[in-house]
Amino acid sequence: MAKDKKLVEAITSMEEDFAQWYTDVVKKAELIDYSSVRGCMILRPNGYAIWENIQKELDRRFKETGVENVYMPMFIPESLLQKEKDHVEGFAPEVAWVTHGGLEPLQERLCVRPTSETLFCDLYANIVQSYRDLPKLYNQWCSVVRWEKTTRPFLRSMEFLWQEGHTAHATAEEAEERTVQMLNVYADFCEQVLAIPMIKGRKTDKEKFAGAHATYTIEALMHDGKALQSGTSHNFGDGFAQAFGIQYTDKENKLSYVHQTSWGMSTRIIGAVIMVHGDDSGLVLPPRIAPVQVMVIPIAQHKEGVLEKAREVAAKLTADFRVKVDDSDKSPGWKFSEQEMRGIPVRIELGPKDIEANQAVIVRRDTREKIVVSLDEIETELAKVLDTMQAEMLERARTHRDNHTYTAANYDEFKDIVANKPGFVKAMWCGDLECEMKIKEDTTATSRCMPFEQEEISGTCVCCGKPAKTMVYWGKAY
Amino acid sequence: MAKDKKLVEAITSMEEDFAQWYTDVVKKAELIDYSSVRGCMILRPNGYAIWENIQKELDRRFKETGVENVYMPMFIPESLLQKEKDHVEGFAPEVAWVTHGGLEPLQERLCVRPTSETLFCDLYANIVQSYRDLPKLYNQWCSVVRWEKTTRPFLRSMEFLWQEGHTAHATAEEAEERTVQMLNVYADFCEQVLAIPMIKGRKTDKEKFAGAHATYTIEALMHDGKALQSGTSHNFGDGFAQAFGIQYTDKENKLSYVHQTSWGMSTRIIGAVIMVHGDDSGLVLPPRIAPVQVMVIPIAQHKEGVLEKAREVAAKLTADFRVKVDDSDKSPGWKFSEQEMRGIPVRIELGPKDIEANQAVIVRRDTREKIVVSLDEIETELAKVLDTMQAEMLERARTHRDNHTYTAANYDEFKDIVANKPGFVKAMWCGDLECEMKIKEDTTATSRCMPFEQEEISGTCVCCGKPAKTMVYWGKAY
Repeated sequence: MAKDKKLVEAITSMEEDFAQWYTDVVKKAELIDYSSVRGCMILRPNGYAIWENIQKELDRRFKETGVENVYMPMFIPESLLQKEKDHVEGFAPEVAWVTHGGLEPLQERLCVRPTSETLFCDLYANIVQSYRDLPKLYNQWCSVVRWEKTTRPFLRSMEFLWQEGHTAHATAEEAEERTVQMLNVYADFCEQVLAIPMIKGRKTDKEKFAGAHATYTIEALMHDGKALQSGTSHNFGDGFAQAFGIQYTDKENKLSYVHQTSWGMSTRIIGAVIMVHGDDSGLVLPPRIAPVQVMVIPIAQHKEGVLEKAREVAAKLTADFRVKVDDSDKSPGWKFSEQEMRGIPVRIELGPKDIEANQAVIVRRDTREKIVVSLDEIETELAKVLDTMQAEMLERARTHRDNHTYTAANYDEFKDIVANKPGFVKAMWCGDLECEMKIKEDTTATSRCMPFEQEEISGTCVCCGKPAKTMVYWGKAY
Repeated sequence: MAKDKKLVEAITSMEEDFAQWYTDVVKKAELIDYSSVRGCMILRPNGYAIWENIQKELDRRFKETGVENVYMPMFIPESLLQKEKDHVEGFAPEVAWVTHGGLEPLQERLCVRPTSETLFCDLYANIVQSYRDLPKLYNQWCSVVRWEKTTRPFLRSMEFLWQEGHTAHATAEEAEERTVQMLNVYADFCEQVLAIPMIKGRKTDKEKFAGAHATYTIEALMHDGKALQSGTSHNFGDGFAQAFGIQYTDKENKLSYVHQTSWGMSTRIIGAVIMVHGDDSGLVLPPRIAPVQVMVIPIAQHKEGVLEKAREVAAKLTADFRVKVDDSDKSPGWKFSEQEMRGIPVRIELGPKDIEANQAVIVRRDTREKIVVSLDEIETELAKVLDTMQAEMLERARTHRDNHTYTAANYDEFKDIVANKPGFVKAMWCGDLECEMKIKEDTTATSRCMPFEQEEISGTCVCCGKPAKTMVYWGKAY
């Protein structure tokens, strides 16, 4: 543990060692700390505040589609977890087991939820009787536990925060519609708020969720050319409903099984924000998600009237922006470094000469562009700068992704790209598990998704040469 | 599980069987459902939405005092839990133990947090070095687990939702100030938002938190005359700091231990809302906390224009109020019963004759008072009705509490009151544990708190007759 944590030391350069750069940023921006529990992270105020903003935005978007929030128990009895065969096979190897309560051993052990399909199914079996009770559109914000061997801040940890939506519908069509609707909510949120462009598509059977009929995904490309699965939406058909006996009487008084979906996004997405937008000075947060959007930094603050003016400007901006003043006794240069490390979208520099000229200097975190503005027009100018920055961050991320998306017409090309050009590879696939496994074994690239926007690159599978069924995005992934 | 859950059956009367009335309300208002996990509750949308509003209000009030949110792991290694002696003695008998991760036994077992003092101490020991790092004012929203034998919706369950604030300060004075400050935040919130008047005071040593130097509490009186501890705030002094080695260098470069506090409020407070305000028709929610404040119920909605007008009125009110229209195909009487069971503060009845007269009828949930208002003035009239209702609910609760608060000058009086008059008893106490234990054994009443507002009822302890040190509120409690 560094004894002088305030010191903004140089961090490892991205090009030199991207993994170390990532760890440095996460620690130095004080997003996370490690805990005494192996594999569990502490979300510190700077990190948790990002999650709070993500929650606020997503929650609003969910509720606009009719979703209601609930809270389910964190424990699942072993017998309940075992009710759906594929599901238990997928999760049992990686759950934490509670075996004792107080001083006594339990009669049946309980797992700490890795996900809550089984609990929601149990509830729906109890409260859904008639078509009038449908649809059920429930969501919960909670933490889940998966017993991972190797962990990494935000990207993979034993416990993480997420939301999990679980819906029950009268028809298969409605369930499919909801599955895609929620994927679109995720993709729009990521693009509009996090400035991360997404590839939307369907997972192959090999990569789909344990127990799902179909899994849809949004995939993003990180700065180092690796892919990150950023949110998923599953259509369960009536598989869980049959296993748990969730039936309703329809208008003709006939008993039918419900059709279900689930969909989730986790703190993992904060890892994407860091790896898409960050640079060698630290974090860069898109204005719409930044807990602090503007840091006002007085220059020569010991001089009369400077600190007062800085506070006055900040107070004026507080109505429309999330603003702070750094009035600590550090040097301006030090304050700049801290503001940059924390990814605060803009700083406003304000010194005696600025005050005399009734102006201030807005400095963008992403481009370092300096914009001199009159104090009379600072609100409108600041709004413009933040809007421009938000839009340009998305465009920069899109350009980076497009520049690192390749097309492979045959297997030699495919292998060469995966080996030498970090990014997505678009290639045709026959649909056979065997080819998917071979590609992974040969190259370590996995199928990311079968995108909704298909292209006909060639007529044959890039691996086996047999007739192709679909175009797939491939890539190395986190 | 009732097959026709829509049917609003009569619930048990409060006077007949208060405990059964409570359970009926909780189930029929669809606040909670029981789960497959013994002792764990499901918070359904109607129940969780109340918690969301409580969170929003409290979180804003916390942040106004400088508090920042974090998230700590849900697991605590056994060795960490054992670092503070009193604390582990208090909690070890009632924790859930994780002993296996995936397929393997753990080297050290982990408890599921019953509270997170130990984790926050561990973090503070790592991140606090200098006086510049103080104070640390952290809070988290999470669930905790306590292995209870007997459970009751909201009031006592194995897992429950809460917030826990944990602060570290340079001086004992600052810690004491913060402890009282947060108690006041709770008390103000309960009075202003939940319309529940609170007695503020200090717990006796017997009743204080495991490891605390002093515990402050807010105590409320339920409709049946039993007390409910509604929120607590603890001053730890430097006890935890010494056990965990949390030291900082002050301005003179001298090493000192920090002084700490913690404070929490849980979903238990929803139990208080139910038991203070409810009646034989179900829940009654104070307007400021109600997820839906106004239910517009069309009368003769099959008649032309009625449903349209109801929606139009609701749409107009949506800017200022949380409004819904019940446009289901149930009868108006049925809709009234449902709205009453759910505790929605007012309904607006709107039929063809009302529309013709350009009016509507506002009906208060608490008093059943009917107020005919012009549709042109419905926003201002509604605001008035809701404000009045909020204020009167608080006054009614205060009157009920005051009418059920008794004074005992001697032990015979004391025993007679506890046996025959449900409510608080004010009586003097010598300060000895022995008397406190005897009173509990003789009467089942416990010391609720030593109130900040002291009165001199007599000079001697109500139990032993020795000189009295302090006045205490006693009562049977949930």
